[in-house]
Amino acid sequence: MADTTVFRASTTAPVNIAVIKYWGKRDATLNLPTNSSLSVTLSQRSLRTVTTASCSASYPAAEGDTLTLNGKPQDISASKRTLACLVSLRSLRKEVESANASLPKLSEYPLRIVSENNFPTAAGLASSAAGFAALVRAIANLYQLPQSATELSRIARQGSGSACRSLQGGFVAWRSGTKADGSDSLAEEVAPASHWPEMRALILVVSAEKKDVPSTEGMQTTVATSPLFATRAESIVPARMTAIEDAIHRRDFPAFADLTMRDSNNFHACCLDSEPPIFYLNDVSRAAIRLVNDINRAAGKTVAAYTFDAGPNAVIYYLDDVSEIVGGTFKAILGGLEGWEGLFGGSIKSVSGAIPLQELDSRAIDSLKNGISRVILTGVGEGPIEVDTHLVSETGAILSSE
Amino acid sequence: MADTTVFRASTTAPVNIAVIKYWGKRDATLNLPTNSSLSVTLSQRSLRTVTTASCSASYPAAEGDTLTLNGKPQDISASKRTLACLVSLRSLRKEVESANASLPKLSEYPLRIVSENNFPTAAGLASSAAGFAALVRAIANLYQLPQSATELSRIARQGSGSACRSLQGGFVAWRSGTKADGSDSLAEEVAPASHWPEMRALILVVSAEKKDVPSTEGMQTTVATSPLFATRAESIVPARMTAIEDAIHRRDFPAFADLTMRDSNNFHACCLDSEPPIFYLNDVSRAAIRLVNDINRAAGKTVAAYTFDAGPNAVIYYLDDVSEIVGGTFKAILGGLEGWEGLFGGSIKSVSGAIPLQELDSRAIDSLKNGISRVILTGVGEGPIEVDTHLVSETGAILSSE
Repeated sequence: MADTTVFRASTTAPVNIAVIKYWGKRDATLNLPTNSSLSVTLSQRSLRTVTTASCSASYPAAEGDTLTLNGKPQDISASKRTLACLVSLRSLRKEVESANASLPKLSEYPLRIVSENNFPTAAGLASSAAGFAALVRAIANLYQLPQSATELSRIARQGSGSACRSLQGGFVAWRSGTKADGSDSLAEEVAPASHWPEMRALILVVSAEKKDVPSTEGMQTTVATSPLFATRAESIVPARMTAIEDAIHRRDFPAFADLTMRDSNNFHACCLDSEPPIFYLNDVSRAAIRLVNDINRAAGKTVAAYTFDAGPNAVIYYLDDVSEIVGGTFKAILGGLEGWEGLFGGSIKSVSGAIPLQELDSRAIDSLKNGISRVILTGVGEGPIEVDTHLVSETGAILSSE
Repeated sequence: MADTTVFRASTTAPVNIAVIKYWGKRDATLNLPTNSSLSVTLSQRSLRTVTTASCSASYPAAEGDTLTLNGKPQDISASKRTLACLVSLRSLRKEVESANASLPKLSEYPLRIVSENNFPTAAGLASSAAGFAALVRAIANLYQLPQSATELSRIARQGSGSACRSLQGGFVAWRSGTKADGSDSLAEEVAPASHWPEMRALILVVSAEKKDVPSTEGMQTTVATSPLFATRAESIVPARMTAIEDAIHRRDFPAFADLTMRDSNNFHACCLDSEPPIFYLNDVSRAAIRLVNDINRAAGKTVAAYTFDAGPNAVIYYLDDVSEIVGGTFKAILGGLEGWEGLFGGSIKSVSGAIPLQELDSRAIDSLKNGISRVILTGVGEGPIEVDTHLVSETGAILSSE
């Protein structure tokens, strides 16, 4: 009689938002970047992917490996990136099995993977980083692999470049590496969340207008056509990586903020310098930049930093002790929107600490009021967390977390 | 009895729109640029400044030199740039007088200068280039100076950098020069208007929203803060200058257009890379870029090129033989606005040659319809032209051209 045991492991994984941006691949298949990058892992109490990896000798071999994402079956065979992750993880499991013949041969069983995001896809938040991090972490747990998060980042990177940074919490650097096989292109923790737990992130979600240029396509266009890009990759980013790691170690917010804003602008400048030009920032994004600058000026010091990924949404970093100045000012403008009740909403007891709106650019305020659809108030958080709420039943049935 | 003769000379001068942009000074007092630039002089039948320079022994010495601009007396003493031009021109007149003692000592007489622009100041078109070119040309005529337009460009440059390119027609290069005294920072004709008379320029004037960062301030911010800017000034622009001069000599529109669009984007990328970031392009500008790209794609070849100065207005270059494709398409979108009846309006007999609007991005069309307030349809034109319609009467009274 066949073994009907269903082996399961489940994990959550976080979103990360880069402060030194990843843009440009030196190897598109291995997802090797032209430059290092650094991100803040955001709390999974706000945004997370939950993934259960399961395998069983009883799963039909004819079905092969399967992946269900947000309730919808995915065609794994069409995703080279997913396949690359599964091949690497199975290979590591085989090593474990070779070393201990008493272990079940999980590497030979079909995988049944179920994943769900808790954040609205309409929010335009890149879900691939959290998704591939959760996939790799869940399977690594299922296979009981001995590899560290940094070693596993090599695998997650092949799924989605920035996913390698979501395997750890706090402040994470992805070292570009120099080797052709990518073996030294790895993510490592610069500082844990507990080093600077006061770090907050306010995400201003811009009303969806149209599809932006996908980042994979956009970054290849930039590498191929922007005459400014090489300067960014070869000289500007390396200097900023050193400087921002130092700022994080010293918990120097003004330095951290200055580098964050400059690097966001530098990245978008290289997009604009591409042919055809790539625009991710729109007039609403510009208004958010204007208001952050106005808030810093009114506060008399740098208390907030904006950054933008490959889309118009603003992410605004600040420390908890200025929550009423920064968060409160945005709440005074956008208080009617959903999202303020979130994780750190309690830090903004009132908006009485907000900067008087007449000290801010009135056109920018109007632009934000008209152009932002919701906010997400969160902060720095931990890396993937193993959970025992599985999305696959003991008999292999696909469940929902809802 | 005092000599009451009023000496007069009048000229018109053109606007120019750069295709390789001037952005950044290596010497702010002498207006020496960090890089060379190249522009197209636009026809004065569309846009022009008219200036009369006059002087007379009968003008009250106590009043000193005076300048009336668009009917309003200006405070010359507060304008170091204007004073620098007058000092240089007087000095050259003195040389003329020294060589020929029979000439009247015009250099000792007060100057009365009257200038008028024929274009709406609300159009956001930089008037300083035409203004300083007309001022220098008119006084040089009054003083009967032997210097060439290129030699006079050294003086106009001190009034406004880009003014040095408005002293000549057609396609004009401003060589940055390398000398500290600026003596080799001069404008010279690359090709006359007659070399490529089919060149058209359609200006899309964006509804005024707010004051942009003034270009003098903006370019100093970029030089001081953008880590990408040095690459532009030292390497990208020199290569593009050579390439675009070659394209002009060969009348190769696709090459001219490609370089023009890339250099506009490169310039605005450096603005965005500044701290604080400088944004001249807004969502309406982006829509114009999108439509030019769509038109080129639909036409199957590069028939139009966009460029943007330090503001959101689009200038779209194309050749007369595609007027119905390029001008006609924009007229099909913006036909209700003022400006189509202009100089080359006859080239767009109908919009039947326009690209079907359903082949273009519908959001960009809506954005343009909502965001453009008027158009100016013009083309390449001649340099300053001496005229005998004076803005100062024979007795020294200030007149109006209207």
